[in-house]
Amino acid sequence: PASNSSRPSSVQELHVYEINERDRGSPAYLRLSQKDVNSLGDLVPFSNKLYHGNLKKRLGITAGICVLIQNVPEKKGDRYEAMYSFYFGEYGHISVQGQYLTYEDSYLAVTGGSGAFEGVYGQVRLHQIIFPFKIYYTFYLKGIANLPEELLGTPVPPSAAAEPSLAARAAEPHAALKNYTD
Amino acid sequence: PASNSSRPSSVQELHVYEINERDRGSPAYLRLSQKDVNSLGDLVPFSNKLYHGNLKKRLGITAGICVLIQNVPEKKGDRYEAMYSFYFGEYGHISVQGQYLTYEDSYLAVTGGSGAFEGVYGQVRLHQIIFPFKIYYTFYLKGIANLPEELLGTPVPPSAAAEPSLAARAAEPHAALKNYTD
Amino acid sequence: PASNSSRPSSVQELHVYEINERDRGSPAYLRLSQKDVNSLGDLVPFSNKLYHGNLKKRLGITAGICVLIQNVPEKKGDRYEAMYSFYFGEYGHISVQGQYLTYEDSYLAVTGGSGAFEGVYGQVRLHQIIFPFKIYYTFYLKGIANLPEELLGTPVPPSAAAEPSLAARAAEPHAALKNYTD
Repeated sequence: PASNSSRPSSVQELHVYEINERDRGSPAYLRLSQKDVNSLGDLVPFSNKLYHGNLKKRLGITAGICVLIQNVPEKKGDRYEAMYSFYFGEYGHISVQGQYLTYEDSYLAVTGGSGAFEGVYGQVRLHQIIFPFKIYYTFYLKGIANLPEELLGTPVPPSAAAEPSLAARAAEPHAALKNYTD
Repeated sequence: PASNSSRPSSVQELHVYEINERDRGSPAYLRLSQKDVNSLGDLVPFSNKLYHGNLKKRLGITAGICVLIQNVPEKKGDRYEAMYSFYFGEYGHISVQGQYLTYEDSYLAVTGGSGAFEGVYGQVRLHQIIFPFKIYYTFYLKGIANLPEELLGTPVPPSAAAEPSLAARAAEPHAALKNYTD
Repeated sequence: PASNSSRPSSVQELHVYEINERDRGSPAYLRLSQKDVNSLGDLVPFSNKLYHGNLKKRLGITAGICVLIQNVPEKKGDRYEAMYSFYFGEYGHISVQGQYLTYEDSYLAVTGGSGAFEGVYGQVRLHQIIFPFKIYYTFYLKGIANLPEELLGTPVPPSAAAEPSLAARAAEPHAALKNYTD
């Protein structure tokens, strides 16, 4: 046993946008089921860009994999089991797992994190705006110290028109985390 | 920081059956090793039905993936690394990770959850009854409020003869969670 | 609610070596991207041997999967999203998730565990010595009782020359955990 620290159980909200700018070769839809319809057996590794909810700052990337569980014809969509992480440059990362439904919102589990997110737990709400290119997340985080100020701030309400600022898209120094993940 | 809540560390047991009724195209054995014997490189996405331990209520589904780690000829079985979730309709989900040995019981880690299972931790005992169609789980859950009453109750001891009631199998309203996951 | 127990938030360090002795058919590089360069879509299931940081004791194995996220030519390496577990024989296991960069150190999240590691959280530092054959890990573990004495002890500083003792390599009874994972 080394140092001791308490573990806060207050809730902190963190708002981010995950945006597929079609420049990372993502997603890679692996049709391993060898069926015409999306089916169990298909796997979808992916990695997209991550922006702050205020759309003024590039944070990093997402990275992980979706396991196709079921095509849901009556919803014109799919159920995936998703396992991935959100990377925030030098602040570290948050890992999540749970359902991604292409036709409605869902909550995933926050399973852990590193750096400023070491010891994190809680859940995250996934709100899809445009499939599969724009997703808005609201994290409800517990177990960590106060978030750094540049991760706080008022989010832009999710809409199809919501876009990162040009400076954030270009990851200019004032519009990106220091050493943002790329 | 928003609301504050304590995190209970008492243990709550939850008993469930995972049953493959051969109607979900599961498992999808992907023989990516391209070897005759199950080998590292093979992947097995899966999704089965989930019933309460009392076999009187349909709860939802399981969903995830097994990574074949090793064929174990002296045990006539396989070692998998398993990453999956248990879905309980509107109550949310529990994610787990750990070893699945087709020839003996094992414990997996509870890595997180959503909804009624937000903030959950602990472990789960996997007890296989009939490979790969019937598995009995005992969850030892911590970090959450008291489980809803319909998830409590005395389980049917695991045996090859244990089967869900016809009403549960048909997911009749009195024999299924409201909006059970399917 | 059954028994009650407190959850320690003190930090315990655990040092281990992961060594690929080329006898487990690992890693299985699945070039599912079908591209010449490592690309999103490639998957890498793996399982290696696990030794104590003092290199005098065989502990068990690692088991899991790496998802290739990005080839990074300027670093002459790759970014992976890694999801795997460390098995310690009868002591149970630790599951982790996060980035594995073949060109620099990183921190992964500890997402849960079983047995002596039930309820564990924290993070782990991954320090690569020789790609992809020798990796040194420093776990910073919270949420568990004092580690068993045979998992403590001074580690051998990581170097290319660091090798397990012959007795540990042969998993002789005095140089291996009882029922070490294999």
